[in-house]
Amino acid sequence: MIAFRSLAPPLLGIAMLIAGVLPATAQQVLPSWNDTASKQRIVDFVKATTTEGGEGFVAPEARIAVFDNDGTLWSEQPYYFQLAFIIDRVKALAPQHPEWKSKEPFKSILAGDLKGIARGGEKGLVDLGMSTHAGMTTDQFEKIVTDWFTGAKHPKTGKPFDEMTFLPMRELLDYLRENGFKTYIVSGGGVEFMRPITEKAYGIPPEQVVGSTITTQYAIVGDIPVLRRLPKIDFIDDGPGKPAGINKFIGRKPIFVAGNSDGDYEMLRWVTAAKGPGFAMIVHHTDAEREYAYDRESAFGKLDKTLNEAERRNWLVVDMKNDWRKIYAFEN
Amino acid sequence: MIAFRSLAPPLLGIAMLIAGVLPATAQQVLPSWNDTASKQRIVDFVKATTTEGGEGFVAPEARIAVFDNDGTLWSEQPYYFQLAFIIDRVKALAPQHPEWKSKEPFKSILAGDLKGIARGGEKGLVDLGMSTHAGMTTDQFEKIVTDWFTGAKHPKTGKPFDEMTFLPMRELLDYLRENGFKTYIVSGGGVEFMRPITEKAYGIPPEQVVGSTITTQYAIVGDIPVLRRLPKIDFIDDGPGKPAGINKFIGRKPIFVAGNSDGDYEMLRWVTAAKGPGFAMIVHHTDAEREYAYDRESAFGKLDKTLNEAERRNWLVVDMKNDWRKIYAFEN
Repeated sequence: MIAFRSLAPPLLGIAMLIAGVLPATAQQVLPSWNDTASKQRIVDFVKATTTEGGEGFVAPEARIAVFDNDGTLWSEQPYYFQLAFIIDRVKALAPQHPEWKSKEPFKSILAGDLKGIARGGEKGLVDLGMSTHAGMTTDQFEKIVTDWFTGAKHPKTGKPFDEMTFLPMRELLDYLRENGFKTYIVSGGGVEFMRPITEKAYGIPPEQVVGSTITTQYAIVGDIPVLRRLPKIDFIDDGPGKPAGINKFIGRKPIFVAGNSDGDYEMLRWVTAAKGPGFAMIVHHTDAEREYAYDRESAFGKLDKTLNEAERRNWLVVDMKNDWRKIYAFEN
Repeated sequence: MIAFRSLAPPLLGIAMLIAGVLPATAQQVLPSWNDTASKQRIVDFVKATTTEGGEGFVAPEARIAVFDNDGTLWSEQPYYFQLAFIIDRVKALAPQHPEWKSKEPFKSILAGDLKGIARGGEKGLVDLGMSTHAGMTTDQFEKIVTDWFTGAKHPKTGKPFDEMTFLPMRELLDYLRENGFKTYIVSGGGVEFMRPITEKAYGIPPEQVVGSTITTQYAIVGDIPVLRRLPKIDFIDDGPGKPAGINKFIGRKPIFVAGNSDGDYEMLRWVTAAKGPGFAMIVHHTDAEREYAYDRESAFGKLDKTLNEAERRNWLVVDMKNDWRKIYAFEN
C-alpha cells in the first residue's frame, strides 16, 4: 500500500495500464448473457480454476478450452456453412464437369435437393468436401476460401457467413482468454476451411484450430515447393474422432468443452471424466425467432443422446432463448 | 522525455520492470555462441523481422519458428534417443514374448546388434516404435515415457537423455521467444514420446510439438473414456511429411527453420521458398571431442543433399566446433 500511495494517481493509472491489470468489473463479464444460473455456473467454474490456493485451481498452462464450431460458435442452419461453400464450388466447377448432372451427390446439389445431400450424413459431407476441394495447392485453396467468405451471404439473414457467430460465445472465448485459458476450435469441419477466418471471427489463430483434414503431398512445381491437396481423407474430427484429434493436435486434456450435438458426445465424456476439474456445456438451439429451434430430429447438429445424459453427467445445457440476451452482434 | 524525467529513478525502474521492456544487452544474446558470422546472421534476421517499419518486418503472430529435434536440439548418437527407449521397452517386454528371440527386428535389439536395426532406416524405426508401443492407453504410455526419462542414462555421457540438449539451441529458442516468435518442434520422432519432456527440456509446451503419430481409438473402459494406442501408424513426420505436418498441425508457413539432416530437406525448401522472409539453418556435427562428428555416411542423421545445396540456397550451416562455445549445459 505504501508504495502505491507514493505514486501520484495519474502515474498509478499509467503503471496499471502498462501492466494490463485493470480488472473487469462484475457487470462487464459476459454482457450478452442473461443473469441466469447458466452464466453463474460458468463464472463460478472460471473463478474456481483461477483462484490460487483454492482446491479447484488449475495452472495457467493447463487451462485448455475446446469449442465445437458448427452450432456452437456460429449457426449451422439451414445447413452447415461449409456445405454452402461446397454448393457454390460445385456450381462454379459444374461447367467443367458435365457428368455431374447425372451423378450423385453432385446431381442433388445442382438440383438444390438438400435432403438428398443430408442423407449422406456428416461423413458424406466431408467426403463431398474432399472430392470437390482437392487437386489444388494449399495456398490456392486458402485463396478460394477467403474469396468465398468475402462474397457469400447466408440464405436467411443475408449476412456474410463469418458474421453469423454467436456474440455470447465470442464473449465467453474472450472471458476465458482473459482468465488465462487457451481457446481451441475442435470441429468436424475442414481445418483449412476454418483457418482463414477464425482469427477475425473468434480471436483464435490458425494453429489453434483442430478439424478434419485432407491428405497433402509435397511437390516441386517449377523449382518451388508446394503442398498439393489430394482427394483423400486424412482424418475425420467428429464423434470419437474429437478426443483423438485433441490428443493428436493439442496433446493435453482440456478442462473446458463446449458443444451442441451428438458429434460432441465423446469429447464431452472425455473432458468430464478426467480426475481434475472438467466443465462441459451444450448449446441448445431453442430460439426459432432469433436463430433456429431444433435438436433430436435435425439433419444438421442432431442433439439427442447428449441431451439425454446431460443432467446425470452434470453438463450445463445452455438455453439460447432464455440464457442469451443477444445472439448475433448485428441484431438491434 | 518530460514525463519520464518526472519519475524518480526507482519508480522508472519499477515501471520498466512491470512493462518488461528492459532490453538485453548485446553481450547477453546467445552467450554460448562464439562471435562468428553464424551468430551474426541469426541476430541480423531477428532484428530485421522485429524492427517495425523495416522492410523485413514480420507481425508477431506470423513469427513461427520450427525446429527438428534429433540432432538439432539434442544429440542423436550413438542412436536416436527414441531407439534407446525402444531397446529398453523390448528388453522389458521380452519375457512375455519368447518368440522375439528369433524374430527381427527384436532379435537384433535383444542381441545388441544396432547395425541390424539401422538397416531398416528411420521408417523402420518408426514401425518398430509403433509395434512395441501400442496396446495401452495414452495415459499409460505417457507414464511409461516419463518413468523411462527419469531412470535411463545416455551410453556415452551417463547423463539423463533430456539433459543431452544443446545449450546454444536452448538459448536460441529463448532468444526467439523473447522476440515474439512461437517455437515448435517438428520431428520425425513420436509426438507422444517427446511431449512429456519438451516443456522442461526446451520451454516448448505439448501443443507445440509436431511429430509422427500412432492411430488412437476412443473406448469406454468401466464407464471411463480412454484413448487406446493401436498398432497402426497414423502419420510419419519426416522428409516430405514435415511440410505436410506443419501445414496440418500449425496451418501457417514458418519464417525460421532449423534442421540437421536430409530428413529436414523438404522443410527447409518449403520455408525458404516463401515470398516473405525465411531463414534456414543446419546444425553440422563437426565436434568429435565434445559431441560427435558425422554427416554424409551416418546411419542416424545423414546429412548429404542438404549440405550440398546449403550455399546456393543461402541456408546457414552452423559449425558446432567453431560456432559453439559450449555444447551441453553440464560441461565444465
